[in-house]
Amino acid sequence: MIIDSHEHLIVPEKKQLALMEEAGVDFTILFSTIIHPETAQDLTTLTQELQPLYDIFTGKRNPVEARKHSLEELKQVVDKYPQKYKAFGCIPLGLSVEENNEWIEKYIIKNKFIGLGEIVPKTGEVKQLRTIFSSAEEFGRLPLWVHTFEPVKFTDIKELLELAVEYTKIPVIIGHLGGVHWLDTIKAVRDIPNVYLDLSASFTTMAPYYAVKEYPLRTVFASDAPYMTPRAARLILEEAIQDSGIRRRVMGENIAELLQL
Amino acid sequence: MIIDSHEHLIVPEKKQLALMEEAGVDFTILFSTIIHPETAQDLTTLTQELQPLYDIFTGKRNPVEARKHSLEELKQVVDKYPQKYKAFGCIPLGLSVEENNEWIEKYIIKNKFIGLGEIVPKTGEVKQLRTIFSSAEEFGRLPLWVHTFEPVKFTDIKELLELAVEYTKIPVIIGHLGGVHWLDTIKAVRDIPNVYLDLSASFTTMAPYYAVKEYPLRTVFASDAPYMTPRAARLILEEAIQDSGIRRRVMGENIAELLQL
Repeated sequence: MIIDSHEHLIVPEKKQLALMEEAGVDFTILFSTIIHPETAQDLTTLTQELQPLYDIFTGKRNPVEARKHSLEELKQVVDKYPQKYKAFGCIPLGLSVEENNEWIEKYIIKNKFIGLGEIVPKTGEVKQLRTIFSSAEEFGRLPLWVHTFEPVKFTDIKELLELAVEYTKIPVIIGHLGGVHWLDTIKAVRDIPNVYLDLSASFTTMAPYYAVKEYPLRTVFASDAPYMTPRAARLILEEAIQDSGIRRRVMGENIAELLQL
Repeated sequence: MIIDSHEHLIVPEKKQLALMEEAGVDFTILFSTIIHPETAQDLTTLTQELQPLYDIFTGKRNPVEARKHSLEELKQVVDKYPQKYKAFGCIPLGLSVEENNEWIEKYIIKNKFIGLGEIVPKTGEVKQLRTIFSSAEEFGRLPLWVHTFEPVKFTDIKELLELAVEYTKIPVIIGHLGGVHWLDTIKAVRDIPNVYLDLSASFTTMAPYYAVKEYPLRTVFASDAPYMTPRAARLILEEAIQDSGIRRRVMGENIAELLQL
């Protein structure tokens, strides 16, 4: 079973199903999104679609209402295709534990979502994740999916890993494998068994190759669609993994075990 | 004809030929390298191999002797397989026009190399490329291949494009499509016909998709091997280009015309 462990909701819904079909992806963990770059037709509309994302990266926006809407949009699709999707729901940074708990109760648990993410800390902001770790623990073992590509620095990744060391029951998925800091990230997670490595957004095949070589049971296939097509992401990763048993683990079994799918 | 427009010299030489073979690459533009991460066996040896590269990125090293050696190594392989390779040769930053000319005469022209690169400016250092543009003009129309991924910023890319506007006869290949600044880079090169976009190191398939859509005659396939396997790079790009005529342009014809292969 091929499981894409990280796609954003794509519209219209048949487009997402078609992308999965052409990649031979059986099941997807779907994430909410406040933008839909897949609807762009040219550079002008693409820029309009991507601008809110860049504004979040740089801290210009923290769009709470847009996030609530995106969770509603996500719930509708996941409820409609239970054989295709489970979902992670977003949560804003900077809330108290009580506010987190309220958010999680209302937008995650009630929606039957199974994790929190994509969490996008700006550089220097990882400390704000402590209350999220704390709330995730209160709700059992809610996994966290954290963006670690630009603009996140390696100092931020180290802080994130310190939280993972402290909250040993919370599975933490390191989104995009640390980005340009992939090598340092691979080395840093050695003794933190609750940390998993997401292999999306690789700009070098060395990154997933070494990540899988070191952690065949803690690395997970993901496309980050619509930012990469599931087919391209699958081809890159299968090309990097020769052993068929390890390939099965990375392409589906690892995430299925982690999320009890 | 499939032409990989950017691979670094890989050792042993049969390994490079095997990577080309398995990707169906007919011809490669080969670049010198002072490191050989493809020889690493584990994270320790990989770190040792990559450290000099990171030291160049951060300005800790400017290894002139190692560069001279890498050019010698490159010449031997290219001379041995003229039906497989042509080469670009590196040049240090910070030399005067006269010193550049001497370097180009001795290490580029005499070796029958056909371009200058990979040029890796640190952020803020692009101004130092002016003397290289000037020398490239003196030697006809030597193309320049410039690294524009991390640690290069968009302000650096803009300065590079200003030089390209000034030196209209010098073909400038924007290596790695601007990295995280791919969208701004795609928009910025519109009216600079001597600028070409290298499609290697894509962490999102949106980048090559839109680059090719906008500039089907100025985008070139490259793997940046050993950092990505030629096969994975080819799969990503062919997946992003539906039109067979445009695909032929990007996968070989564009670079063949540019370099008069």
